[in-house]
Formats: sequence, structure tokens, C-alpha cells
Amino acid sequence: MREFIYFSANGRTSGNFSDLMQAGRLDIAIHVIIASFFLSNKLRDDVRLHLILNGSPDPPKHLEFISNEEMPISKKDVSGLIKRMLYKYRKGQKVEVFPGCHVEKKSFGDLINELKTEGKKIYLLDKKGKDIRDTQLKDNAVFILGDHEGLPKKEMKVAEKISEKISVGPTTYFASQVVVLIQNELDRKGI
Amino acid sequence: MREFIYFSANGRTSGNFSDLMQAGRLDIAIHVIIASFFLSNKLRDDVRLHLILNGSPDPPKHLEFISNEEMPISKKDVSGLIKRMLYKYRKGQKVEVFPGCHVEKKSFGDLINELKTEGKKIYLLDKKGKDIRDTQLKDNAVFILGDHEGLPKKEMKVAEKISEKISVGPTTYFASQVVVLIQNELDRKGI
Repeated sequence: MREFIYFSANGRTSGNFSDLMQAGRLDIAIHVIIASFFLSNKLRDDVRLHLILNGSPDPPKHLEFISNEEMPISKKDVSGLIKRMLYKYRKGQKVEVFPGCHVEKKSFGDLINELKTEGKKIYLLDKKGKDIRDTQLKDNAVFILGDHEGLPKKEMKVAEKISEKISVGPTTYFASQVVVLIQNELDRKGI
Repeated sequence: MREFIYFSANGRTSGNFSDLMQAGRLDIAIHVIIASFFLSNKLRDDVRLHLILNGSPDPPKHLEFISNEEMPISKKDVSGLIKRMLYKYRKGQKVEVFPGCHVEKKSFGDLINELKTEGKKIYLLDKKGKDIRDTQLKDNAVFILGDHEGLPKKEMKVAEKISEKISVGPTTYFASQVVVLIQNELDRKGI
């Protein structure tokens, strides 16, 4: 599985929103989902995406999406999917809202430490990191992306401890553009 | 200037539309515009993008966007910009609707032949083309992208005559994802 984590510092943590930009820039999260799962004529079948939403009213929320044939994902209504997942959240549980789509309360730090414990190799996207093209990627790679403001100090500190910095190029791209560039590199490396 | 041509076989050629997908998949054109001009925290200042819309009611239309500081482009309302450009079209003229934003009647074939005559090097995106990473790109490069169905036969014939086929990777990406990959390659090559 190709694995991505997108951290949204202000992403709204309940389903009662209408404007995506005003919901803590969930529009960016939507574009990350599209870049993670969609190709021109099909859905990718090998992706696991974690969104950590850390905005009001009830942070943190961990939304997990795993490729599968029954995943009800349509480019037209990704925001509806997020809404429904947030509405179905239940305290103390990891709820499978749709096949492959889970919601639970979990912090960014807890998530990445868990993945590390599972033996994953954690990469943190950073303009000053090692060039992804020169990196020996394996299929246990997990890529952490921050939002338009980058990771906040607290999350950066946790991430820096257990990850290696990696770069997709000499400029700062949108999170969704970064996902496209990583996917392409994995496509090329046949991972 | 980095130069892109996006051909939309069914893109609507008048401003009276509301649903972008139903307007001949102008949603794809919007994403191409965003991938062409937007970086995380700024607009690119070196891009020239041509959209050829070939749908009803009055094809073909050539919409041209050239980076400049006064370009009224906002990610929130790219569709409004296209609408206004189509409404301002005047027969027999190339109208500058906003700084750097022009509309006129011009076919795909006429456009690429003109660019060729100007000394541009024309590349046609194709999965079977030469790898862009192994290609000596110069700053006179123009990249042709088809829509989700690829170039129609007529346009393909004209394009094949004067272009070289180039590839960004082993799978078929969205047009906007292809733009992201080309931009990254040009960023890396310092062009």
C-alpha cells in the first residue's frame, strides 16, 4: 500500500460545514484525496490515506481511507463523504462508515508513532530534504504532508524524531501536487 | 515562458453554463489552469496557457492566459473568469478581456502551426513517448495535452506532424496532474 498522512491544522472536526475553504481549508484535504486515489480513467487500488483534522470543534479526528472496490468515492462529492464520516463519529470507537473509510479520535503523534512501531518507514516532505528521486523507496514508506502553513511546531517535533526528510523539488507545491509527484515517483519505481 | 496547450473536445464555447462537468468537462480545464499557474503560496510568473474549446455552440474558441501581476485569477473563481472571457468574445477579433487573458476564434491546428512557425518546439504528451526526464528541454518548449478522452483523430493527425511525443510516466494521469509533473520537471531543470 502507498501510504500518505495529511495533517490539517484547522480542518473542521464536525460535519456541519458548507463552505470548504471556511471549514479550515478542507478544500485542500479534498484535493489531497483526489490526488491520492484518482487516475485518469480509474481509481488507484493500492492507497491508504490518513487525514488528521485538528480544527474545531472536537479535535483531533483521524479519517482513514483505504482503496477498495466498494469505496463510495466520487470526485463530484468528496466533501459529502467527509461530512458523512464526521457525522458518524462515535466517542471511543473506530467506526467504519463505509467500506475502507474509518473515523476515530486519534492525534497525529499517536498515528505516526503507531505506524513506526508497525515497521513503517516514515518520510516527512520538506523542501530541504533528500531528493525523492535519489531515495531507495520501499513499499513500507509513509509520506507526511503538512497543510498550506506547514506542520505546527508540536507536530513537527514529533515528526522530526521518527522520520527522514524528503523533497520532491526545488519549490513549495500544494499538498495535492506533492501527492501527484510522489505517486509518479512510485509509479516509475514500480512500487 | 512555460507554454501549455489544453485541447477540450467538448468544452462549452459560450459563457451560459452553470455546471462545469456538464459544460463539456470544463472542470478539467479549471484544474489545468490551477496546475499551470498556482504554487503553494504564489502564482507562477512565467506561464502561457492556451485552452482550445471545441464544444457547442460556437467552436473553436482559443482562450489564452499569460502570467502577469494584474491577472484576475483566483482559485475560488476560475470558472467565473472563463465565463467572462467567453461572454466578451467578438467575432473577427482577439479580445483582451483582462490583462493577459485573451479570447478569439482559432482552431487547434492553426494555433500549433503558428507556434511551430514562431520557432517553438512542440511536445505531445503520450504514455509511449520519450521520458521527459531524459529529454533536453529548452525554454521554447510547448506541451500539448488532450482531455480525458485524448486528442480526437483530426487534431492528433495535425499534432503528430509537427510534434515529438513525450511521456511523464508509465500510467495515464489527469491533464492537471500531467501539468504538475511537467512543471516539476521544468523547476528541476531550472528552465
